[in-house]
Amino acid sequence: MAWASKLLFIFFLSIFTIDPISSYKQHPLDPLSPEELNLTQTIVKDSFPSSNNTTLTFHYVGLDEPDKPVLLSWLSKPTNKPPPRALAITRFNKQTHEFIIDLANRSIISNHVYAGYGYPTLGIDEQTEAMQLPLKYDPFIGSIRKRGLNLSAIVCSSFTVGWFGRARNRRVVKLQCFHMNDTVNLYLLPIEGIQIIVDLEEMKIVEYNDSFKVPVPNSEGTDYRLSKQKPPFGPRINRAAIMQPDGPGFHIDGHTIRWMNWVFHLSFDARVGPMISLASIYDSEKHKYRSVLYRGHISELFGPYQDPTEEYYFNTFFDCGEFGFGLSAASLVPLADCPNNAVFMDGYYAGQNGIPVKVSNVFCIFERHAGDIMWRHTEFDIPDVSITEARPEVSLVVRMVATIGNYDHILDWEFKPSGSINIQVGLSGILEVKAATYTHSDQIKEDVYGTLLAENTIGLYHDHFLTYRLDVDIDGVDNSFIKHNLITKTVTDNSTARKSYWTVVSETAKTESEAKIRLGLKPAELVIVNPNKKTRPGNSYGYRLMPGPEAHSLLLEDDYPQIRGAFTKYNVWVTPYNKSEKWAGGRYVDQSHGQDTLAVWSLRNREIDNKDIVLWYVIGIHHVPCQEDFPVMPTLSSGFELRPTNFFERSAVLKVIPPKPVIWPNYNASP
Amino acid sequence: MAWASKLLFIFFLSIFTIDPISSYKQHPLDPLSPEELNLTQTIVKDSFPSSNNTTLTFHYVGLDEPDKPVLLSWLSKPTNKPPPRALAITRFNKQTHEFIIDLANRSIISNHVYAGYGYPTLGIDEQTEAMQLPLKYDPFIGSIRKRGLNLSAIVCSSFTVGWFGRARNRRVVKLQCFHMNDTVNLYLLPIEGIQIIVDLEEMKIVEYNDSFKVPVPNSEGTDYRLSKQKPPFGPRINRAAIMQPDGPGFHIDGHTIRWMNWVFHLSFDARVGPMISLASIYDSEKHKYRSVLYRGHISELFGPYQDPTEEYYFNTFFDCGEFGFGLSAASLVPLADCPNNAVFMDGYYAGQNGIPVKVSNVFCIFERHAGDIMWRHTEFDIPDVSITEARPEVSLVVRMVATIGNYDHILDWEFKPSGSINIQVGLSGILEVKAATYTHSDQIKEDVYGTLLAENTIGLYHDHFLTYRLDVDIDGVDNSFIKHNLITKTVTDNSTARKSYWTVVSETAKTESEAKIRLGLKPAELVIVNPNKKTRPGNSYGYRLMPGPEAHSLLLEDDYPQIRGAFTKYNVWVTPYNKSEKWAGGRYVDQSHGQDTLAVWSLRNREIDNKDIVLWYVIGIHHVPCQEDFPVMPTLSSGFELRPTNFFERSAVLKVIPPKPVIWPNYNASP
Repeated sequence: MAWASKLLFIFFLSIFTIDPISSYKQHPLDPLSPEELNLTQTIVKDSFPSSNNTTLTFHYVGLDEPDKPVLLSWLSKPTNKPPPRALAITRFNKQTHEFIIDLANRSIISNHVYAGYGYPTLGIDEQTEAMQLPLKYDPFIGSIRKRGLNLSAIVCSSFTVGWFGRARNRRVVKLQCFHMNDTVNLYLLPIEGIQIIVDLEEMKIVEYNDSFKVPVPNSEGTDYRLSKQKPPFGPRINRAAIMQPDGPGFHIDGHTIRWMNWVFHLSFDARVGPMISLASIYDSEKHKYRSVLYRGHISELFGPYQDPTEEYYFNTFFDCGEFGFGLSAASLVPLADCPNNAVFMDGYYAGQNGIPVKVSNVFCIFERHAGDIMWRHTEFDIPDVSITEARPEVSLVVRMVATIGNYDHILDWEFKPSGSINIQVGLSGILEVKAATYTHSDQIKEDVYGTLLAENTIGLYHDHFLTYRLDVDIDGVDNSFIKHNLITKTVTDNSTARKSYWTVVSETAKTESEAKIRLGLKPAELVIVNPNKKTRPGNSYGYRLMPGPEAHSLLLEDDYPQIRGAFTKYNVWVTPYNKSEKWAGGRYVDQSHGQDTLAVWSLRNREIDNKDIVLWYVIGIHHVPCQEDFPVMPTLSSGFELRPTNFFERSAVLKVIPPKPVIWPNYNASP
Repeated sequence: MAWASKLLFIFFLSIFTIDPISSYKQHPLDPLSPEELNLTQTIVKDSFPSSNNTTLTFHYVGLDEPDKPVLLSWLSKPTNKPPPRALAITRFNKQTHEFIIDLANRSIISNHVYAGYGYPTLGIDEQTEAMQLPLKYDPFIGSIRKRGLNLSAIVCSSFTVGWFGRARNRRVVKLQCFHMNDTVNLYLLPIEGIQIIVDLEEMKIVEYNDSFKVPVPNSEGTDYRLSKQKPPFGPRINRAAIMQPDGPGFHIDGHTIRWMNWVFHLSFDARVGPMISLASIYDSEKHKYRSVLYRGHISELFGPYQDPTEEYYFNTFFDCGEFGFGLSAASLVPLADCPNNAVFMDGYYAGQNGIPVKVSNVFCIFERHAGDIMWRHTEFDIPDVSITEARPEVSLVVRMVATIGNYDHILDWEFKPSGSINIQVGLSGILEVKAATYTHSDQIKEDVYGTLLAENTIGLYHDHFLTYRLDVDIDGVDNSFIKHNLITKTVTDNSTARKSYWTVVSETAKTESEAKIRLGLKPAELVIVNPNKKTRPGNSYGYRLMPGPEAHSLLLEDDYPQIRGAFTKYNVWVTPYNKSEKWAGGRYVDQSHGQDTLAVWSLRNREIDNKDIVLWYVIGIHHVPCQEDFPVMPTLSSGFELRPTNFFERSAVLKVIPPKPVIWPNYNASP
C-alpha cells in the first residue's frame, strides 16, 4: 500500500538524523531523544510557578502518538511539518496534569488536569525514597528489634494498593520488608505481619501496624549469584558461538530495522517497552512492501495473586500502568540475555524530575539460528529419482526484559521470512512468597493459597495475563475479523461411506461483542482479513491468529480486581481503532476503578467489519509454584503467532536462497 | 532408583559391543542390527517350505520389546541371558504370522498366526510394484489418452482404503495417479475420476473405474527444487554456523546418549521411528541419576481428511501402523535439516524380503543454542548495588523426519538441563489437493471441503492427530496421575476485601476413566507424581504435562474412521502399563475395525493410582489449507512439554556453569 513504499523514502531521510529537535527530519514514531526529554522538562517546568516547583514530578514523558490518519497522511506527504511530539504526565500540587507539547515550536499545545479516579505510573525516585522511610521509623525499628533481626539487612519494596471499593484520596504504596541476611534474594525472606502505608506526596508513613510474628525463612540456598554457589555445581555448558562471516542479515537505520523481506520501526516507551510499528513485508511477486502491523506492543500485564488474607489480598498488580515496563527495563547482558551475534540498542526515559535516564542495552536484536527447518520435502514416490529439498529456518528476534521487583519478563518479537510474527513471553526471576510456620506439608490443614517450596516458605498462587495491543493493517487499514468455525456435518443420505466430516462455516464479526472469544470452547480459525483485496483464486488477504495455551481470569466478575482487569475475561478482543484506547487497564491504573478498560470501551459494541481494527490478545498463565521455581525460576514461556493466511499467492519462502556453508580455518580452542 | 545407576554400568558394557549377535553384550533395547535382521530373515524363511517362499513377505522386523519387569530385573542383574530379541511379522500364503525369535540360540520361540481383522504395515516394495501396474493396464492407458495426458509423465501413489463397515477379505490399496508434466510436485497434479484398487497379494488391479473428467491443474510454479526456481528469488539467508571450540557437549556410546545432566537410550524402529528409553536426569543434590521416562515414542498418527465424496471419503490414514514412520524416514540433509553442529546416526529396517535396508542420517542430534534465556534476574530494589545474573539456554535435540507420501513430519525430542522434555512436531511437505473446474472462489456455490489454493486446485480440510505413548517412571515405576483443578472460591464472610480467588483442589485419577481429558474445558495442572517419594517440604516428586494448543477429533463417534481413531476424542489418557498396549490404533491398523485401540483398552477402566502407568498425549492440528501452504508448506509446529514439578528440591539449573566466551582469530569470510 501507499505508505509502505513512501515509508522507505522516509526511512532513508531519517538515517542521518542528527538534530533530534528538528523533528521533521525524524520519523514521527521515534521515541523522544534525550534532548527532547530535556526540552520537555524545561517547557513543563517553566509553565509552573518556580516557587514551589519542588512538588512537580514527571510520571510519563514520551511520544504523543499522532492520531493514525494524521500519521498516515504525513507519511504520504512527509514534507509537511509533523504532528507535535511530546506527551508529559506530571503531578503538581497533588494534581495530575497532561501536557501535549510541540517541541519544534517549544510550545505547550494543551495542559489538561485529570480529575478522575486513578493515578499515573509511580516514579522510581519516590518509591526508592519511600522504601527508606521504615529504616528511620521508630515503630518499625522496634518491630525489627522485637524479631531479633538485623536492621542493616532490611530492604523494603513498594507495592501498589489497588482498589477494593473504597477510594483513598491520596497516592500511597504499601511496603513489604525483607531480611536479606547474607543473600541478595530478598523476595524469599519476607518479614510477615508488618503493614506499612506510605503517602508518596507527603513522603511519610501514614499507616503502620505490626500484627503478628512469623519467622523469616532460612536464607540458605537462596542466593543466585554464581560467585556465591558452593559445590556440587550444576552441569557445565560447552562454549558455543554463532559465526556469521557475512555479518548479520539486518540493518538498523535510526529506529528502522530491515531484515530479509521485513521492514519495521522499533521504539522504546517508558510505559510498555518495545513498540513495533509499520511492520511491512516485501512481496517479491507484487514487487512492493505490504503492511501487516501498524503498531504492536504489550498494553497491560494483570497479575492477580490468589491469597485473600489481610496481608496479601491487595496483590493484584498492573505492571505496565503502575510500574512501567520501560521504567523497569533491565540492561541486557551480552552472551547471557542475548547471543553473541546480537546487536544492542539503548533507551531513554524521563526520571521523576524529568531529566533523561539512559538504559544501556535495553533492546537486543539478533538472527536466531535454532536449527529448525523452514520447509522441506523428500520425494519417495517417483521411480528412480531421489529428491530432497530443505531450507534451514532463520528468524529475527527483538528482545527486552522488564523486571518488576521479583519477576523478570522476557519480551520477544520474532519475525520469520515466511511472514509469521511470533510474540513470545518468558517468565523468570523470583517468586513472591510468604513466610509460614510450616516446615512440612503434612502440617498444613488449611488452604495456604500456595505451595510449600521450602521450610517456612509458601510460593503464592497467581496469574500472569499479558495483554497485547495489535493494530493490524493487513495490506491496508480497513480489515475484518473472521471466525472460520469448524462444524461437524452429519451424512444422512448414504451419499458416501462416511457418517461425518467437518467443514468451515465462516462468520464475520460485525461488532465488538461478536469478537470476544474465550479460547478452547469451540474449534475455529481466527483470521484478520482485508475484505477489499483478494488473491487470484479469490481469497481475502489475511493473517491468522494462532493462539498458544489458553488461560483466562478465574475471578468473579464483580470482584474489584477483576473489575479493573475485566479484559482478562476473554483471550481475544477486537475494537475499532481509537487513539485514546491504548491501555487495556486504563491510562491511570494505580488505584483505578476500572472505568477506563478495554472491557468498558467495547461495551459500546461498535462496528468492526471492514474498519480500521485493533486486535487484542491475552496471554494467560495460571501459576502454581513448584520447588523448581526456587530460588530463581527457569524460564516459563508462552506466546502466540500471527501467520499469513492467503496473504501471499503462495509460500513466501519457496524461493529463499539457502546460505552457503561456513568454512573457517582452525582456531585456538582455548583462548 | 536402582536401575538408573545400574544402567550406567550397562552402558559402559555396551560401548564396545562388536558382536551384535551375542546380544548379552548389547543393550536389550538396542534396535536389531543388520546382522540380526539378516539372521531373523534366515530363521523365518527356513521355517517355511522353500517351494513357495515367493509369497513370504516381511512387514515388520524389530525388537520384541521385553516386558518391563523382565527388562528392569535384567538391568539390575545384567549377567543373565537377556530376553529374546526379535519380533517378525510376515505374510505367508495370505496369512499374518507373528514370530518371536531368540537370536542368541537362533531359535523360534513362537510362531503365531493372527486371524483377526486388520493387516500389518504395508511393504514398500509391494506398493512400488502396485504403483507401476496402471502404466501397463489398457483401460488406464485409455483413460490417460482420453485426457490427452502424457503416459510417461504419470506417477501413481498408493493409499490405504480404511474400513467403512464392510470387510474386504484381501489386502488392497487404492492408487491415485498424478500427471507430473515438468515438475516433481506430483501431489498438486491429481488426475481425478480414476479409481484403481490393487490386490497386493495377487499384485493386480481388481477394480478400475473412470467416472468423470476434471482437468489436471496447471503445474506452473509447483516445482520446489532450487534448481528450477526463476526470479524474482526470495530473500537470501546470510551464512551462519555454530562454533563449539570444546566440541559438542554430548557423548554417544552405541545407542546411549549422555548430555549435561541427562542420559537416555535412542533407538530406531521401523514402525514409529525414534524411541527414547530409560531417560534419567542426574540430581546433583542426591548424587544419582533419577528416572523420568522409561520409554517414549509416537504411537500413531491419525489423519482424517474431511472430504466425504466418493473419491476422497476413505482418506483417513494411520501413518505409523499403515505405512510406518521408520520405513518412511528421510535421510536428513546436513546444514538444512540439521545445523552444522549436528551429529548423525543411521538406521536399519527389514525390507519386504527381510533383507536390511540402511537409512543414512536417519537421526540427527545437536545442541540447540537458540539465543533463549535459561533463567535470569536483575535486582533493582537493593540500594547502591546492581545485580544481574543470567544464563543462556541450551538444549539437546534429537530429530527424525518421516515423509509419508506428500507430508513431511519433523519429530523433535528436546531435553533441557532444567529437566524439561519438549516433544515437538513440525509439519512440512505438500498438501493433498483435488482438482476442480473452479478458477475463482466466486464460482464456488457448494461445499468443496477445502480451500481454493490456485486455479483448479483445492487443498482439502484435514486433521493431524499425533498420539504419543509416554511410559513415565517418575523416580520409580509406580506413579499416579493428579489433576490439580483450579477452582474459584467466593469470599462471603467479609473476612477480606477480596470477593474471590482461585485455589488448587487436587484429584488423583483412580481409574482410566478419570484420566480421559479434553483440554481447554477446565483449568487444571496435570501432573504425574510418584506418590511414594516426597521432597523435604513434603511434595510428591512430579512431572507436569504442559499442553500445547488443543484440538480433538470432530468426527461422530460412530463414524467408521472415528471408531478406528477413537483415541483422538480426548487429548490425554492414562493407562496401566501393559506390554501389548503400544499402538494406539492397534497392531494391525490397515483395514482395522477399531477393536484394538487405546479407547477400547481403557474401557476396562483399570486402576491407575500408584501403578506403573503410561501417559498418552494427542497433539491435534485442524488444518484449513491456505495459499502459503502451496507449493510446499512452511513448517507448522505444535507440541507439549514434560516439566519437573517438585521433582527436584530446587531449580536444577541454579548452579549451571555458564560457558566462557568463544574467541577466534579472523577468518576468511569468503571461502
